Amino acid sequence: MNEHDDPHAHKHPAHVDGLSVVAVIGDGQLARMTQTAAIELGLSLRLLAGTDNSSAAQVTADVVVGDYTNLDDLLRAVDGATVVTFDHEHVPQEHLAVLASRGVNLQPGPGALKYAQNKLAMRTMLAEHGLPVPVFAEITGAHDAGAFWDLVQSRVCVKAASGGYDGKGVWFPGSKQEMIELVDRLLSDGVQVLAEEKITLTRELSAMVARRPSGETKVWPVVESVQEDGICTTAIAPAPGISDTLARTAQDIAVTIAGTLGVTGVMAVELFEFTAPDGTQRVSINELAMRPHNTGHWTQDGCVTSQFEQHIRAVADAPLGDTSPTADYTCMVNVLGADTDPEMGIKARVREVWKRFPEAKIHLYGKDWRPGRKLGHVTIAASDRSPKKLLADTRCAAGFLMHARWEDGYTTTG
Amino acid sequence: MNEHDDPHAHKHPAHVDGLSVVAVIGDGQLARMTQTAAIELGLSLRLLAGTDNSSAAQVTADVVVGDYTNLDDLLRAVDGATVVTFDHEHVPQEHLAVLASRGVNLQPGPGALKYAQNKLAMRTMLAEHGLPVPVFAEITGAHDAGAFWDLVQSRVCVKAASGGYDGKGVWFPGSKQEMIELVDRLLSDGVQVLAEEKITLTRELSAMVARRPSGETKVWPVVESVQEDGICTTAIAPAPGISDTLARTAQDIAVTIAGTLGVTGVMAVELFEFTAPDGTQRVSINELAMRPHNTGHWTQDGCVTSQFEQHIRAVADAPLGDTSPTADYTCMVNVLGADTDPEMGIKARVREVWKRFPEAKIHLYGKDWRPGRKLGHVTIAASDRSPKKLLADTRCAAGFLMHARWEDGYTTTG
Repeated sequence: MNEHDDPHAHKHPAHVDGLSVVAVIGDGQLARMTQTAAIELGLSLRLLAGTDNSSAAQVTADVVVGDYTNLDDLLRAVDGATVVTFDHEHVPQEHLAVLASRGVNLQPGPGALKYAQNKLAMRTMLAEHGLPVPVFAEITGAHDAGAFWDLVQSRVCVKAASGGYDGKGVWFPGSKQEMIELVDRLLSDGVQVLAEEKITLTRELSAMVARRPSGETKVWPVVESVQEDGICTTAIAPAPGISDTLARTAQDIAVTIAGTLGVTGVMAVELFEFTAPDGTQRVSINELAMRPHNTGHWTQDGCVTSQFEQHIRAVADAPLGDTSPTADYTCMVNVLGADTDPEMGIKARVREVWKRFPEAKIHLYGKDWRPGRKLGHVTIAASDRSPKKLLADTRCAAGFLMHARWEDGYTTTG
Repeated sequence: MNEHDDPHAHKHPAHVDGLSVVAVIGDGQLARMTQTAAIELGLSLRLLAGTDNSSAAQVTADVVVGDYTNLDDLLRAVDGATVVTFDHEHVPQEHLAVLASRGVNLQPGPGALKYAQNKLAMRTMLAEHGLPVPVFAEITGAHDAGAFWDLVQSRVCVKAASGGYDGKGVWFPGSKQEMIELVDRLLSDGVQVLAEEKITLTRELSAMVARRPSGETKVWPVVESVQEDGICTTAIAPAPGISDTLARTAQDIAVTIAGTLGVTGVMAVELFEFTAPDGTQRVSINELAMRPHNTGHWTQDGCVTSQFEQHIRAVADAPLGDTSPTADYTCMVNVLGADTDPEMGIKARVREVWKRFPEAKIHLYGKDWRPGRKLGHVTIAASDRSPKKLLADTRCAAGFLMHARWEDGYTTTG
């Protein structure tokens, strides 16, 4: 078949005949970095963006401005697209169902996305398949809450089943009474609630996998991630000191979930590493994200195939790329908006970082400063220093972009 | 100084306050790949493009459609730009002079670009500074032509002083009479002509350097390049078997030229490697390109800092990035339009290549097929095979994208 005859070929000048038109619902940094990868593959994204100056819309020629909760806007954005994917999990299931019923090629599909949208459904499904999850229960009233508190001996984490991200929608009540009051409030607000046993963790890991609709999967090295206030701030790959066995277990879990839930594209499985009673290190599944993920940004600069390129290949059902690392370790640290925007402009801060760390790769998302907002990230891929030094260097670089000062007291003369 | 007050800040939604607005004159694949690098740096290019579906315009939100030989179009494109750079050398000097006189920040400036625009001026300047160039002379008539033929004992290369690229504007006359007739024709067409001694070369090399207006320079490993019919088709870095001495010499030449001519941004110095009478390998300067260059594409996938990122940093006078390679060898092979466009569509060809070579990075430029046209390139960065095998693999991958067949007879079952 001559694919120049592809009936889906769209005539916007951003797209060339014979190649896929990949529509992305969402306009944040994940879509922006997917656009970078798309360009090199000869493509260009179609975006459904909230505004024409959003992070991804700034750098995309074919932008549909609209609202992903509005079905008409969704229909405009997907018209003529070869495949439709997402930079977040928030498109309502009822709209996804309509798109699917009209033959729109959604990757991942609604059947998989519902598990990323609802933590209770996700937990239930994973437990049914024997995958390691914390003890959990849906909480529908004060009685449930009290019983769960006792069951896990006060080690409780309460979550909204849907809608949370970056630490939002997660609570750690300090007493049974506090838990009961919290649950009452959430339930009366119409929030579906689950409770989980709070795990005493050694650290957090992330196992990322890509899966094609036709079944091929590829995993990346397992990452250690550091969360602060529920926001991923640091990732290092591979997770320093992880045993081959545990790494393989984490990767196998990701592959199993992808296959079991029918996930397509890139998925991140956030894991808790903990010490089992027998003294071995084990993992328990925390969250799933069915899209490129913060813990995969390191692949842009430290891996043969980045998560963004792989996501495009996977959702287009094309053969997946090599996921070998290109350095011994790669570290990624997020640049978050500081409490106050430094007097020194961002352009000058970038220069200072490049001056000190010529090997640092700075990624900025085109977003205005706001305290705590993810504005960019820094990666350093290195084979010439210890993971500890690499972490320190990368944190230092990202810290300067945030605060315009060196956390380690570094100074230059002249 | 708070750089949010930058008076150059442009209000097009493609650009964010506080960062540079980089305008590029030109709309080809070099501008396209510069846009990729720009996006990750938090920027977005402003383009002066011939059409809105050109290679770079497809992937850029802020496009001025116009003609780079038209001063008004140039003025529209540079309005509000922090810095202006180029993806080719063809903007007329008189227009560059006007832009410079109006305070437009051109990088490289007209004083440097004139040497990339005129090979006679370039040769003369380099010879005056004692840099190794072939024997050359301006040819202004039949007498000059005959005398030069005799001087170099018939080993003649005739060049148009300006306007040539990819083998255009270069001739190898077979006899003195043929040379005289060629020169007569060129001169009567108003072409400025130079003749050079044709060197018996071992191979072609490329030394790439980046230089900031304030003087900092960084070089990449020296590349071996293969030209076919005057078009660069293959590059491998570092040049296999090159001695440290010769590599250093080539890099020093590039740094010296950049400093002497006041080049800013990325420059490629194309070199001939030849065997001197004493048996040692030497180099002689062939051409200069004051922009990212085909022999630098490997840096996208095999180097800490790509030539495109470095070009942006250099023209913006920001500290330059680490140019260390990330693999033992990286090979790049161009994808040229075949004589006939294969029946198998490009999308299917890409899939076949990825299936066989998961480590191959495919870059496509969004251009329609035309015989001999540069449509893309493939790179493989590897530390697990010999340069010879790497070359064979990369050629095979690029060959399949061109011809939809494996040059080595590879077949799969099932």
